[in-house]
Amino acid sequence: MSRWKPDSERRLIKAAITLFAAQGYDETTVAEIAESAGLTKRTFFRYFADKREVLFKGSSELTERWIDGVEAASPDASPMASVNAGLDQVAELFADRHPFARMRAQIVAANPELQERELIKLHSLAGAIAAALRERGVSNNTAILAAQSGVTVFHVAFARWVEQDDPTAFRRLMDESFEELRSVTAA
Amino acid sequence: MSRWKPDSERRLIKAAITLFAAQGYDETTVAEIAESAGLTKRTFFRYFADKREVLFKGSSELTERWIDGVEAASPDASPMASVNAGLDQVAELFADRHPFARMRAQIVAANPELQERELIKLHSLAGAIAAALRERGVSNNTAILAAQSGVTVFHVAFARWVEQDDPTAFRRLMDESFEELRSVTAA
Repeated sequence: MSRWKPDSERRLIKAAITLFAAQGYDETTVAEIAESAGLTKRTFFRYFADKREVLFKGSSELTERWIDGVEAASPDASPMASVNAGLDQVAELFADRHPFARMRAQIVAANPELQERELIKLHSLAGAIAAALRERGVSNNTAILAAQSGVTVFHVAFARWVEQDDPTAFRRLMDESFEELRSVTAA
Repeated sequence: MSRWKPDSERRLIKAAITLFAAQGYDETTVAEIAESAGLTKRTFFRYFADKREVLFKGSSELTERWIDGVEAASPDASPMASVNAGLDQVAELFADRHPFARMRAQIVAANPELQERELIKLHSLAGAIAAALRERGVSNNTAILAAQSGVTVFHVAFARWVEQDDPTAFRRLMDESFEELRSVTAA
């Protein structure tokens, strides 16, 4: 987990994903997560609205960091370059989350409801990036196409990142996926 | 609706979308739809599993036609050209559906549950196209990127098609979106 998270939150996340992986997401209760972390349910609810949020709180951070990066891009950057600038922030955010991301990916893959939630989150993410591009004066269609392309690149690179062993590879995998998208669409 | 649909099915679809648009999707029952079409609930269930399927049956047809087009593409067509070949079939499928598509788009936009269902259907569509590309020997990453790009182009063009008045514009709008995607990713 991220170093800057409170210790209780880190312990709850670790306990939750360990239990989800061991006994199944549906079968795990908030009470069990809190107990396994040596904390109370009340403490759990200080950090998370429910057990699903343990897996999806990171999606909000992802959106915030990506948007920050888009907004900070050079004023003359192309729409796609602005989206790509956001990915530098994203790679930094995920730098120390490789073990979590791997376990989380397996938990989500095993549960259709979580997969649907993931899709919806990625769609919201694309919508937020498109809105940030429109703020920069990009036309609506171009904003949607650039934002959606960025999310597709992120999604493909993320899947490759959790499948391999090098935690530092994420930015490189995103660059490769971008390059591949360019050649796929050009052909 | 398509000319080749049975008359009862066409009447049920027309009655359903008229009622959904007039009084709301959640507020409309299958009994009302059947009555408004001058048919029985039993006849309704011969064509649709539930009222939601009135709006999403077309998604299965869309997937089938698109895949048919991908499979029929020239063996030496690039992944993106194969995806694009599928869009010829898609444009043909939608040729006489402009009035339905417009009303449907408004109904879906007004209902978060339907929007989520739409996202999930588009994701399944991308998965099916990627699988068809892999069957043609395309690598997994390229298949995902090409399929997802095709679905994004379709989605953007569809939104533009239902917003404007010319029912014949769909294929042209998809070509324009493709061209725009190419220049966005190249920049």
